[in-house]
Amino acid sequence: MTGSADERRGGMASPASHPLLAALRTAIGQEFVLAGGDLPAFELDWRQRCRGKALAVARPADTAQVAEIMRICARHGVGVVPQGGNTGLVGGSVPDDSGSEILLSTLRMSKIRQVDTANLTLTAEAGCVLQSVQDAAMRHGLLFPLSLGAEGSCTIGGNLATNAGGTQVLRYGNARELCLGLEVVTAGGEIWSGLTGLRKDNTGYDLRDLFIGSEGTLGIITAATLKLFPQPAAVTTAMAGCGSLDAAVRLLELARIRTGPALTGFEAMNAASLALVAKHFPQLRQPLPAMPWIVLVELSDVEGEAHARDALEALLGEAIEGGLAADAAVAENLAQAHHMWHLRESITLAQAQEGFHIKHDVALPASRLTAFCADADALLARAFPQARVVNFGHLGDGNLHYNVQAPAGGDSAEWVRRHEEDVTGAVYDTVAAHGGSISAEHGIGAIKRARLARHKHPLEIALMRSLKQALDPGNLLNPGRLLPPPI
Amino acid sequence: MTGSADERRGGMASPASHPLLAALRTAIGQEFVLAGGDLPAFELDWRQRCRGKALAVARPADTAQVAEIMRICARHGVGVVPQGGNTGLVGGSVPDDSGSEILLSTLRMSKIRQVDTANLTLTAEAGCVLQSVQDAAMRHGLLFPLSLGAEGSCTIGGNLATNAGGTQVLRYGNARELCLGLEVVTAGGEIWSGLTGLRKDNTGYDLRDLFIGSEGTLGIITAATLKLFPQPAAVTTAMAGCGSLDAAVRLLELARIRTGPALTGFEAMNAASLALVAKHFPQLRQPLPAMPWIVLVELSDVEGEAHARDALEALLGEAIEGGLAADAAVAENLAQAHHMWHLRESITLAQAQEGFHIKHDVALPASRLTAFCADADALLARAFPQARVVNFGHLGDGNLHYNVQAPAGGDSAEWVRRHEEDVTGAVYDTVAAHGGSISAEHGIGAIKRARLARHKHPLEIALMRSLKQALDPGNLLNPGRLLPPPI
Repeated sequence: MTGSADERRGGMASPASHPLLAALRTAIGQEFVLAGGDLPAFELDWRQRCRGKALAVARPADTAQVAEIMRICARHGVGVVPQGGNTGLVGGSVPDDSGSEILLSTLRMSKIRQVDTANLTLTAEAGCVLQSVQDAAMRHGLLFPLSLGAEGSCTIGGNLATNAGGTQVLRYGNARELCLGLEVVTAGGEIWSGLTGLRKDNTGYDLRDLFIGSEGTLGIITAATLKLFPQPAAVTTAMAGCGSLDAAVRLLELARIRTGPALTGFEAMNAASLALVAKHFPQLRQPLPAMPWIVLVELSDVEGEAHARDALEALLGEAIEGGLAADAAVAENLAQAHHMWHLRESITLAQAQEGFHIKHDVALPASRLTAFCADADALLARAFPQARVVNFGHLGDGNLHYNVQAPAGGDSAEWVRRHEEDVTGAVYDTVAAHGGSISAEHGIGAIKRARLARHKHPLEIALMRSLKQALDPGNLLNPGRLLPPPI
Repeated sequence: MTGSADERRGGMASPASHPLLAALRTAIGQEFVLAGGDLPAFELDWRQRCRGKALAVARPADTAQVAEIMRICARHGVGVVPQGGNTGLVGGSVPDDSGSEILLSTLRMSKIRQVDTANLTLTAEAGCVLQSVQDAAMRHGLLFPLSLGAEGSCTIGGNLATNAGGTQVLRYGNARELCLGLEVVTAGGEIWSGLTGLRKDNTGYDLRDLFIGSEGTLGIITAATLKLFPQPAAVTTAMAGCGSLDAAVRLLELARIRTGPALTGFEAMNAASLALVAKHFPQLRQPLPAMPWIVLVELSDVEGEAHARDALEALLGEAIEGGLAADAAVAENLAQAHHMWHLRESITLAQAQEGFHIKHDVALPASRLTAFCADADALLARAFPQARVVNFGHLGDGNLHYNVQAPAGGDSAEWVRRHEEDVTGAVYDTVAAHGGSISAEHGIGAIKRARLARHKHPLEIALMRSLKQALDPGNLLNPGRLLPPPI
């Protein structure tokens, strides 16, 4: 904490008359500095687990205003919390409860600045909703492949600040790999114009990747130049039933060999996941009978529908023949393909319907997935025999949402309150034992900071702190997020 | 510069008796600390443009010894220059001429620590020669796709420290994109063990990408976990003759749409490039008659030879029909394919045979390639009507080696000495005007530092300096490379 901490913590004039607010109103306009009654929508996170209290919400129109806000806040020693669509799952984009932070919403900065079809790039402002970026690419016959559940409301700035993942990572990479250049406002309120559309540029340190995934703690991303791809001629989807996770992993290996870069999706769902979907959404037909694991395979093809189907059927045929799958169904049309994805995406909603549960977002090397799940399953079965493991995720990236549902029938809220610490501790320790990550795609935010201290080597945390100190010496940028609390 | 600068600059005991050397000999063994007569091979760069003078060469056996060397040098305030295969083109891996730096050679650290075929990863020590990494992958039926001219002697540590590019970047990315995890020795001689094989890991700042491309100025890369891919079933190569650079760029666009991720190579060579090859290597048959531009197209296919050939022939047929190409030749077998690549790779040697010339390694957005070349060609034709532009490169990444050959017949060394500054200045200013990079894949090293100051915004340089200060406050790691000289 810096010398500004006292000021942040109160003992000041009442919020509405804070001298900072007058400066912000002058800088970006009275109506774009919200204080008092208008804030709750900004102060509560999507999962409703983190509620904070901001001094005010600032809604800048452009990068120059973001820089001006940052300079004003720096003068007053006031922390700034950047927020895009506020769909993060770790409390990284809501203010703390001190009532002293400025929440900076990027939602008014939603211009697509440029689409360069010859260079296959698109430059968007931070507040662009992901789906509107996808749509802009599509209007030019191109593809922006980042895709995740919240795409209708998350913003590209938030996607980059958290290095979002999603369903096409195994082919196109995370948000990081889809970004060529950034525009960033620094802690000092300067503007770094790094909006290059270059595929190769070895002229200095990789500032871009340092800002990406830093969760707003090193700078505020205000725009980005993104990679586009030609639209595939056809996309084909199938489901296959596997007798074990090991069989599913071996099917993934086979798919990589047989279909190479055409493989754009490989999701897996354990039986408990789809059983919950069947229970709460019985109207959703499940194309395959229950199996220990169901995988969803998607191929994108440059030649066309028939070629894609042939490849997918050949793959699944070989898998069934080789004992990796018991059964498979290829979508006959787009509606059926959407239905398969809808089943996958309904797991989260079915879990919410079922009651309180404990979420995890872990990644393992593909070679350790089976052993990790066997160990974690056994550990939980011993300690919490009534709990249910709802395990699903992006198997192609080794990313599992290894969630633990409270026992059926009881008070699920109470169970989660009582056991979350132990359950998550057991899961994370097992992840660590298998060389995995405790946050594959959601980030650290406010919620996982303490866990980070346990699972990162002190040297790595020291290196991270020295970078934070170098770029934000006043600790003004999203303070109290990502870095573990000081010891 | 730090307090150690005086010490580095001499006025000390004679090199052989420097107290540092005794400590190094104790740490890694007498025979692995070279001083005196054994050094010239380490002190001269590959292009023979930078010759330095080291206090000694240290040849550690493992990471622990690298850390020990670093701690010893830190105690003595002595700078350390890491060196792999010493094939860099910008003087980044040879000592300065002060005789006070320790050159740390990684060549004894050449173990492949692990190949995880299920996870498609390989962990190699920094001193592994790139080709031995490729071979290790191949022995497991897998592909490590980084490929460049120096692959028989460059090391993976150097490849990562400089974020090497090469011929397959348009499909697989630069060295950066092929690396999942690193092990790094810090300026303080601590070991960061970041050798993860994870595809997703959002638990903190991206230290990996900060070290990659930092040219040994932020830490010494001692090992890396790399991405592998299934071997394609077939690779097919062709050449096509284009009437203009614009036609070549449009052929690239068409190839991306028609062949998608199967497109693994797209090189371009102007007429002057291949004319030099014809002059100096007349025994190398050129499959196509001379054209303003010849492109080399490579497809990698998961299905097999026939499918790859069909796709390539269809693409080239469409290109000829659409007026993008006048002529094309598809390699009939592996020997012909190698021959096409050999022609491409002979340009550099033909340039050397022809005499002195000025090398550039620039990148442009694909949409600006044609305009850049038109402007730069015109500028040079006015100022240096006798000079010859030998322009070739990785068109698929917008990366051109826009080289300028001294006029035929004269004293080429004298011409280069007299005009290099102006020629390069004109080329780089034109690059900047078109939003390009003055170093696409070679880096900055010692040679381009001053240029960097001209072509980077002061804010970006200030950010870079603050990162250097954070991670190497004593300026011990490859001092005097990459960052522009202090003003």
